[in-house]
Amino acid sequence: MTCALESPFGHANPERLFAWAGATASWPMRTDPGGSRGLDDYFTRDYARNIGAEIMGRNKFGPQRGPWQDHEWRGWWGDEPPFRTPVFVMTHHKRPSITLSDTTFHFVDSDPVTVLGQAREAAQGKDVRLGGGVTTIRQFLDADLVDTMHVAVSPVKLGTGLRLWELPDELLDRFHLEVVPSPSGVTHHLFWRK
Amino acid sequence: MTCALESPFGHANPERLFAWAGATASWPMRTDPGGSRGLDDYFTRDYARNIGAEIMGRNKFGPQRGPWQDHEWRGWWGDEPPFRTPVFVMTHHKRPSITLSDTTFHFVDSDPVTVLGQAREAAQGKDVRLGGGVTTIRQFLDADLVDTMHVAVSPVKLGTGLRLWELPDELLDRFHLEVVPSPSGVTHHLFWRK
Repeated sequence: MTCALESPFGHANPERLFAWAGATASWPMRTDPGGSRGLDDYFTRDYARNIGAEIMGRNKFGPQRGPWQDHEWRGWWGDEPPFRTPVFVMTHHKRPSITLSDTTFHFVDSDPVTVLGQAREAAQGKDVRLGGGVTTIRQFLDADLVDTMHVAVSPVKLGTGLRLWELPDELLDRFHLEVVPSPSGVTHHLFWRK
Repeated sequence: MTCALESPFGHANPERLFAWAGATASWPMRTDPGGSRGLDDYFTRDYARNIGAEIMGRNKFGPQRGPWQDHEWRGWWGDEPPFRTPVFVMTHHKRPSITLSDTTFHFVDSDPVTVLGQAREAAQGKDVRLGGGVTTIRQFLDADLVDTMHVAVSPVKLGTGLRLWELPDELLDRFHLEVVPSPSGVTHHLFWRK
């Protein structure tokens, strides 16, 4: 368990996966001044724009599986999570809500349509962000509940793991797609509904 | 004069110059729903983010030169200009301020440092946008008052007109530069201070 607690992406190194975002001036976890203001920064500073709630899968919230055993676990993000809105964590194992600074985590056991309804109400007219992981995004894509999607592909070979797609082209029946390479080496995939 | 009033960029067709922005969902002058949500939309929706004031040259505000003769002229943008902040128009010929909806135009006859000070105070902690045209941007670049800059180059041949630069590389002593081609055909140039 300790190993998993220190490795939110399993064998993948999150610092390498998110290096492109961490290098930007607008990275929400940034503690020092500086950072780049190029293309990647447009994507990181758009992160919170007009967002009123987030939906995430349980595996993004933490490494525990099955019934909650460690109620001390309050997510990866310390006392000031970067969401600053209500967050709906999809799990079959309910637990009381947790408030950390501007963020409140609610634990919900429902289908995507119902959870989206709850998140929409909480967002009070703003947009709802679907924060991952892969299983959760696939669920919402399969239910055709996604309007726009930004996927940043980092040049890191993981070998194994869940796949969001075989090829992004499989979404082209429903979405426009622009593929934008960044000087940082990451490739931004921008989808929006046809 | 009539000809100039209908042609804010002289012989250049503004619809062609701004076609990339007008096609996006976030274009502030958009009157119908729809529009693209790809790369170009990130730039148009960033237009107003954290902006508290704009500075523009007189030639952006309107076609009159010399002392103001037509006081009926209130800019190109109708009764609801897209700025929604105080706007400082640099001119040697002063006139009373004009308020149109959320935008107030102030006419100021000062050097860039002084005008930037006035705009900063009006912006109340937010950023100041330098909206053009070419002569004004060159003045502020020469005075080293620019922190970041987004220049969209449209694939339109004008032949004559003011040049912002011979080559963007002439700014590389002071700025980082990323050149990002968009699928729309426009090329975004992103500068930020070293």
